[in-house]
Amino acid sequence: MPLVVVGSVAFDSVETPSATRERVLGGSAVHFSYSASFFTATHLVGVVGEDWPDEHTKLLNDRRIDTSGLQVVPGGETFHWRGKYAPNMNDRETLEVHLNVFEDFDPVLPEAYRKSKFVFLANGSPVLQMKVLDQVSDATLTVADTMDLWINIQRDELTQLLKRIDGLVLNDAEARLLTDDENLVRAGHQVRKMGPKFVIIKKGEHGAMFFSEHETYVMPAFPTEEVVDPTGAGDSFAGGMMGYLTEQNTFDPETLKTAMAYGVVVASFNVEDFSLDRMRRLERPEIDQRLAAYRQMLSF
Amino acid sequence: MPLVVVGSVAFDSVETPSATRERVLGGSAVHFSYSASFFTATHLVGVVGEDWPDEHTKLLNDRRIDTSGLQVVPGGETFHWRGKYAPNMNDRETLEVHLNVFEDFDPVLPEAYRKSKFVFLANGSPVLQMKVLDQVSDATLTVADTMDLWINIQRDELTQLLKRIDGLVLNDAEARLLTDDENLVRAGHQVRKMGPKFVIIKKGEHGAMFFSEHETYVMPAFPTEEVVDPTGAGDSFAGGMMGYLTEQNTFDPETLKTAMAYGVVVASFNVEDFSLDRMRRLERPEIDQRLAAYRQMLSF
Repeated sequence: MPLVVVGSVAFDSVETPSATRERVLGGSAVHFSYSASFFTATHLVGVVGEDWPDEHTKLLNDRRIDTSGLQVVPGGETFHWRGKYAPNMNDRETLEVHLNVFEDFDPVLPEAYRKSKFVFLANGSPVLQMKVLDQVSDATLTVADTMDLWINIQRDELTQLLKRIDGLVLNDAEARLLTDDENLVRAGHQVRKMGPKFVIIKKGEHGAMFFSEHETYVMPAFPTEEVVDPTGAGDSFAGGMMGYLTEQNTFDPETLKTAMAYGVVVASFNVEDFSLDRMRRLERPEIDQRLAAYRQMLSF
Repeated sequence: MPLVVVGSVAFDSVETPSATRERVLGGSAVHFSYSASFFTATHLVGVVGEDWPDEHTKLLNDRRIDTSGLQVVPGGETFHWRGKYAPNMNDRETLEVHLNVFEDFDPVLPEAYRKSKFVFLANGSPVLQMKVLDQVSDATLTVADTMDLWINIQRDELTQLLKRIDGLVLNDAEARLLTDDENLVRAGHQVRKMGPKFVIIKKGEHGAMFFSEHETYVMPAFPTEEVVDPTGAGDSFAGGMMGYLTEQNTFDPETLKTAMAYGVVVASFNVEDFSLDRMRRLERPEIDQRLAAYRQMLSF
């Protein structure tokens, strides 16, 4: 049974200290599904405008990503994000956001998707995310991402969402904003007590933290000299993690931990080039090889 | 054969979002030696003024820390540092630094210390650190810490020092400053190529990175809800690491990695209270218990 992801599909314009790219393929659901595709077939639900080139859809379809849930709005324009990275490649500034067709996105899952057991709610408002939940009542594992924007303007809706999902993924600044607690260990558990069975706090170049009732752990990022473009790293992490869980068809604590490690490793490839450029050259054996190195790195 | 540490002995005045402490026991050599004392006898070389209370010396002596190398300057005042932590407890601002007797510190090692095999050069100028190296020609492992101040005002001397030591410990901002490279993996290896066999970059709440010719690895900090005062965490980390190496009387790659883990764990206790307050209540079995939890946390 494939994994379902609902989220943004976008053009990204990215400026780093050493290079720039204009309107390259991006968006949370794109980075997520491509990373998940190394482990499982994925159903992508999203929306694009008429400016969306067929070659992008073809690229996804070539990696067992089903795009029958990708709506194309006649006369519409695709979501466009423009951002600039600081020299440390960890902090970034958003220069432009044009939601375009994503603004009125009403996710409707094709009938074939509605029996899915594993569902990821990528970038989108809690209201939109709950609309998706209404359509996947058979799901056994629902995990959502969120953003500072929704914490600021839709906190009540986010609070409702948290009671309905199994897992939440958010970054360190968002966890602090949501809980008003600077200590990430306390913040992680506080978010967990708001509803989800587990919470994952992403820390960019510093890795990720996991919180469940009985477990607290940290996994560092895989150390790499080549950080070309961090855009999509968080979605790539989530894609690797959820892809592995879907492949294993379980999410017991041990499998979840290995899934986290796969997420870290897949994201470490994603940042090695712009857009999906590194991922297009990536094969599963390379992922498993780096996972083995990562496991070795953490054993003493 | 005991471990030797040369560095600052100080009064610290610390302000955190929740509490303040005035003129409590601190200094790099103090945090280092106390942390090392769980593993090995330590010789401390430093300087204090007449305002130094006997009870502080007694506290150190009670934990097999030999203070015969601690000079007391008649009429002098002890090094005093005052700092304030940001709400995130990771960033801090130095409000006052009174070097006092530390300014003219001329380290002279008691004869009994000069045959030591394991030596740590804590906070001090590269010139001072090289004076110590001249006195420990039999040492098999010399490791130094450094600071942004020395990178800025004594870069040539620091460059000389780097050619004479086995290991260097510095924090992330210092590594970036020294190499003018924002990527910590590249920065770590660049520093290594300046002389030392291995380099450790401390990242505060995000752990530490290790670099040698054949190894690159990252260890996250031990996740804790109780961060009361991070002062001395870096020295405590180094003390735990060097203490374990001295206890094992070797520094092969495998032992170095376990030593790093001990450093992380010991530092995680140090931050749980002001000054040495948590460390005074700490016993070795607690350290080994947390090390086991840390090892478990990192295995998947």
